[in-house]
Amino acid sequence: MSRSLQVLEQCLAAIHADAARSQAIFTHVFEASAREEAAAADARAARGQSLSPLDGRIVSVKDLFDVAGVTTTAGSKLLQTAAAAEHDAVIVARLRAAGAVIIGKTNMTEFAFSGIGINPHYGTPGNACDASRIPGGSSSGAGVAVALGMCEIAIGSDTGGSVRIPAALNGISGFKPTVSRVPRAGAFPLSFTLDTVGPLAGNLADCAATDAVLAGLPAAASQLPERSVKGLRIAVPRGFLFTEIEPAVSQAFEHALARLQDLGAVVEEVEWDDLLTAPFALQQKGTLIAAEAAAIHQPYLPARASEYDPLVRSRIERGQTLDAASYVHIQQQRSALHAQWDARAANYDLVLAPTVVFAAPTIDSLAAEDAFMKANALILRNTSVFNFYDLPAFSIPAPQRAQALPVGLMFAGQRLSDRTLLAVGIALQKAL
Amino acid sequence: MSRSLQVLEQCLAAIHADAARSQAIFTHVFEASAREEAAAADARAARGQSLSPLDGRIVSVKDLFDVAGVTTTAGSKLLQTAAAAEHDAVIVARLRAAGAVIIGKTNMTEFAFSGIGINPHYGTPGNACDASRIPGGSSSGAGVAVALGMCEIAIGSDTGGSVRIPAALNGISGFKPTVSRVPRAGAFPLSFTLDTVGPLAGNLADCAATDAVLAGLPAAASQLPERSVKGLRIAVPRGFLFTEIEPAVSQAFEHALARLQDLGAVVEEVEWDDLLTAPFALQQKGTLIAAEAAAIHQPYLPARASEYDPLVRSRIERGQTLDAASYVHIQQQRSALHAQWDARAANYDLVLAPTVVFAAPTIDSLAAEDAFMKANALILRNTSVFNFYDLPAFSIPAPQRAQALPVGLMFAGQRLSDRTLLAVGIALQKAL
Repeated sequence: MSRSLQVLEQCLAAIHADAARSQAIFTHVFEASAREEAAAADARAARGQSLSPLDGRIVSVKDLFDVAGVTTTAGSKLLQTAAAAEHDAVIVARLRAAGAVIIGKTNMTEFAFSGIGINPHYGTPGNACDASRIPGGSSSGAGVAVALGMCEIAIGSDTGGSVRIPAALNGISGFKPTVSRVPRAGAFPLSFTLDTVGPLAGNLADCAATDAVLAGLPAAASQLPERSVKGLRIAVPRGFLFTEIEPAVSQAFEHALARLQDLGAVVEEVEWDDLLTAPFALQQKGTLIAAEAAAIHQPYLPARASEYDPLVRSRIERGQTLDAASYVHIQQQRSALHAQWDARAANYDLVLAPTVVFAAPTIDSLAAEDAFMKANALILRNTSVFNFYDLPAFSIPAPQRAQALPVGLMFAGQRLSDRTLLAVGIALQKAL
Repeated sequence: MSRSLQVLEQCLAAIHADAARSQAIFTHVFEASAREEAAAADARAARGQSLSPLDGRIVSVKDLFDVAGVTTTAGSKLLQTAAAAEHDAVIVARLRAAGAVIIGKTNMTEFAFSGIGINPHYGTPGNACDASRIPGGSSSGAGVAVALGMCEIAIGSDTGGSVRIPAALNGISGFKPTVSRVPRAGAFPLSFTLDTVGPLAGNLADCAATDAVLAGLPAAASQLPERSVKGLRIAVPRGFLFTEIEPAVSQAFEHALARLQDLGAVVEEVEWDDLLTAPFALQQKGTLIAAEAAAIHQPYLPARASEYDPLVRSRIERGQTLDAASYVHIQQQRSALHAQWDARAANYDLVLAPTVVFAAPTIDSLAAEDAFMKANALILRNTSVFNFYDLPAFSIPAPQRAQALPVGLMFAGQRLSDRTLLAVGIALQKAL
């Protein structure tokens, strides 16, 4: 048995090892077709052929991407009875064309509208390190599946942090691209302005290889130059993004920062709280995400309100109250803020902050609405700033003593310089 | 006296010939600086130098473009006391760099928000063919100034027809580009989604030369290939765009159409009323323009409501009532409709319709609010469809017997194929 089939069988064994747990992680497992795809990849390899660096790799997709023949639920009960997708989403078609083995579809927060990862309809995937804890969301199943070896690579979506948060909380790597780089056709939308499609994997090199396929890069453009940590200019924006930080997260972060300096990175502490708090100040009356979600859910709300997760529905409904002029104002101010950010960040290779300022809490601790809402706002805080500024960003695990819950380091680069960021990130991850 | 100064003096003489009339056409005449610029252009020409095909040409700009040192009024009383602009608008800077002589700033509909051209603050420029009639708007002064020989080229803006309507009603040529081609920085906005910057001139060749400068094309890309009318595929969408047409306009249109067929154009009558009426059906609750105008005017409304033209203000205020979700829905549906239009129009070089279905009515006949609103909706109807679909489009005069009021023929091309459309248009204008 050759590589792809061998890895696939390991993944399937991990899935079958705890069927009850896996049911909350995967909404579909394509066992038969995945075996065929893996066998085909192995046959290509035996002939010395390779469709791409992803050929034969075992990949899952979040259940908001269309896979032909299967109903896309987007984590909802509402869409459970919808017709099966007729076509693969563009990114699924690209993965297949690259030879990837599609092992299944992963569970998620309903309609991708929360960073916690709790799902009342299909179950909440337990955190890979401690199943009583939240997985992070909204790509909850994606993060847990990779961390538990149920797939090598998971495709998630990230509108406010939905790739980076589960990557951080499950101790793996996750990458969110600049919005325009990866097509979203065939994905159930949350926000037309902010939705991005990105990979989660055991390391950033796999994320980079996957990003090349998702973005449709030609093979030559998929290669990344080798970069060094020495001399990298890293801005650390002390202030807002470090408030409410847990001591354990702070310790892991500072330890990593010291290590980066030891490796020759040039770390500069900066005060950018004006720009970091601006997205929240600007959207106090209502957010772009909520307004766009309200537009997307007009066909279902209020008619089918009872079928929603109440914690998701109430946040969509808030978007119904924003007026168009305020929405337009937010969009215009956002453009102006982008220019300000770009001017300020131009002198740095990277901006570094904790992905999430706390380690995964227990699922039970967030059962009450108040606790959920507070944790949800805080879990999304740091990541969502970089969606607002439409910057490529990744989360990688901070080096830690064993036993501790994972902590994510989030690095952001410059808009549309995604490949440069990934090249630098791979060097960072190797060195750390 | 060489060419530029000579033409400039002719333009200035035309302006001075009827000072009272000119005051409603130009809000500023830069007599001294224009003479210096013309002399400099002539000196370049004498040395055998030329900065561009526009070097030494006499150009006016609509009073919503910033000219450093002068207050931009956008046709309003409200902004009359605002600070002078510190910098030239991008397009003004490009015109200067191309050697154009900036003769002055032209009057316009307040905030560019009507196609009629009546202005209660600075006076209504009388139509070039009959001063008792409306000039068309919103680039009212621009159209009249070119037609009366007060400048060679006028820069207007077109959000719903504001370049093409005054071109049609004053018997000249006007071109509206695809939105993204010409930068709008330094122009007072009406609609972030729909605003375009385009030229009016005596012929389309001058419009094309000006468009190359406005769009910042390198010299090599400014050249247009010579095209022939023979074999051009022209779609004529009978139906909605031909309703409420005046007999004289219809006659001029059909005469031109027959002439195009004689010249070898392949004319096909098509039924596209679904797509042509869709922009209106989609925006019944409120329009993109009104919602975006409401956002832009938030700093002034309602505090300074009394300073507005009531016919403009009431239409901005209507934009305040649209909700964000509906606005987002309109934007999304618009994208989908673009794809439908593109698929259908792909088989044609041009789409042809009357620019406006009536000849310029008298100013007095539109004094009552009802009459104004009805005429305004109809004057913008045909042109605004092509803003909605973001297609390049021009208006050229239909060939006519002398004495008749001008009638415009509007031709639209394919999105971002502006230069192709202009090349074809120049051939059409020469042949007609």
